Amino acid sequence: MLVNTHEVEIEFGDCDPAGIVFYPNYFRMFDAATARLFEAALGMKKIAWTRRFGIVGIPMVDTGAKFLKPARFGDVVRIESAVAAFRRSSFDVEHRLFNGGELAVEGRETRVWVGKDETDPHRLRSQPIPDEVIAAFSLVGQQVE
Amino acid sequence: MLVNTHEVEIEFGDCDPAGIVFYPNYFRMFDAATARLFEAALGMKKIAWTRRFGIVGIPMVDTGAKFLKPARFGDVVRIESAVAAFRRSSFDVEHRLFNGGELAVEGRETRVWVGKDETDPHRLRSQPIPDEVIAAFSLVGQQVE
Amino acid sequence: MLVNTHEVEIEFGDCDPAGIVFYPNYFRMFDAATARLFEAALGMKKIAWTRRFGIVGIPMVDTGAKFLKPARFGDVVRIESAVAAFRRSSFDVEHRLFNGGELAVEGRETRVWVGKDETDPHRLRSQPIPDEVIAAFSLVGQQVE
Amino acid sequence: MLVNTHEVEIEFGDCDPAGIVFYPNYFRMFDAATARLFEAALGMKKIAWTRRFGIVGIPMVDTGAKFLKPARFGDVVRIESAVAAFRRSSFDVEHRLFNGGELAVEGRETRVWVGKDETDPHRLRSQPIPDEVIAAFSLVGQQVE
Repeated sequence: MLVNTHEVEIEFGDCDPAGIVFYPNYFRMFDAATARLFEAALGMKKIAWTRRFGIVGIPMVDTGAKFLKPARFGDVVRIESAVAAFRRSSFDVEHRLFNGGELAVEGRETRVWVGKDETDPHRLRSQPIPDEVIAAFSLVGQQVE
Repeated sequence: MLVNTHEVEIEFGDCDPAGIVFYPNYFRMFDAATARLFEAALGMKKIAWTRRFGIVGIPMVDTGAKFLKPARFGDVVRIESAVAAFRRSSFDVEHRLFNGGELAVEGRETRVWVGKDETDPHRLRSQPIPDEVIAAFSLVGQQVE
Repeated sequence: MLVNTHEVEIEFGDCDPAGIVFYPNYFRMFDAATARLFEAALGMKKIAWTRRFGIVGIPMVDTGAKFLKPARFGDVVRIESAVAAFRRSSFDVEHRLFNGGELAVEGRETRVWVGKDETDPHRLRSQPIPDEVIAAFSLVGQQVE
Repeated sequence: MLVNTHEVEIEFGDCDPAGIVFYPNYFRMFDAATARLFEAALGMKKIAWTRRFGIVGIPMVDTGAKFLKPARFGDVVRIESAVAAFRRSSFDVEHRLFNGGELAVEGRETRVWVGKDETDPHRLRSQPIPDEVIAAFSLVGQQVE
């Protein structure tokens, strides 16, 4: 499976009065990391592939994180992100954030592939994830296709 | 002119490693304060009056703030907001944020009344602010109407 | 067990291009909700009770949330928060966020009671949660005291 | 004078229901841009040079921004930052943010060089900006030194 890595510099404003990253900001970083993962797999930015596949987005339905070590402003952290499982219309993403080479935060997400309801465009509904998308995350699959 | 007051409790996550409010968060508070000011004047929430007057929103074109005294988490600050001037399609808002009775932050905003271009709905353009809106901010005007 | 309720108005700036609350902001709301819960139990603000009990804070070690229904700006949501379990030096908090009377988001947290290491004030270490704190969350305990 | 340039990719979570950057987030970007400017001038991160010069920080006393063009998620913007003036203990920073080559946002800041009061370490007070710092921002100064 494709693993995407990107680096983030922790800013002063990401940190709280204890001097460490205010934990909701890790979810902001992970949301961006998932966007980068899909960009790496699909070869275009989120704003482009949501249009390409005719969907509204990939809203979060369940997320969590474990905080093992703190990060401080000035730290440059590395986030490794991968899709852990694709199902019919939902999928799981896992993030591992490293600070100074040590695992600092683990994150997990379950998201849904969501478009507009054909019979009522004001309603949203989950849709099957296209095979083309799933294949793009599998190096083997990409070669076979 | 109508002056609207609302109180905000400073949260831990609003503050930075120096233990005081991270100043971009004051702009977040002022944006909400302007929404509350219009709600007080127009008697409905922003999501309702933007629909009512057929506009897209009141985007910011110029803003600034002076920081006189810090605020810390647990402080309950009071924000006084008023429209300082209405022009044809733009207007100025002033905010004064008090902490423990002392003026702590002064904010100012210039915003534009913006709707969709009639000839091209993908474009936005400024529109004249309705007299009804301006009157709602004037206590004299409200009585006369 | 003590259940604390507080209301939050969703602001324009809490929402994303899909028009709904950007989910990391729910964690910001839950962090504030835990502070309010402890304030209700202990009768003083977080900045006061951390001093009173000589601790540095209650950092998060594990958190998660399920998103059942969206919330939009202008919505006033109600958050019910309670401690689900106290252990020697860690504890679990549960949040239920209601929008228009319907359960919209469920959050859970595991936090640690952390102070400075007596032998090395530059290090932090978990400490036993005082009986007085645990009792303050138990209505029975409060009556007995 | 030294002009520092850094690029920022606009994330989904930086944007509001109008689909454009929520303007308080530009101040967050500018705060980080000032940190990068000082890092470029002084050759070390903010956490290091505040220690090196024995100060608490460079708190904002007055800031403002003009918004000329919007930015959307996926846009990679370029921020050019420079110190416009040094005074005894305060200084001005100017930021110009370009999107697709066009000037999109102009920001300005006045900050103070602040340390602890020698007679009362619980109080903060402004301090003279060291000549070494001012020289580091002047290419001529750097050559002369």
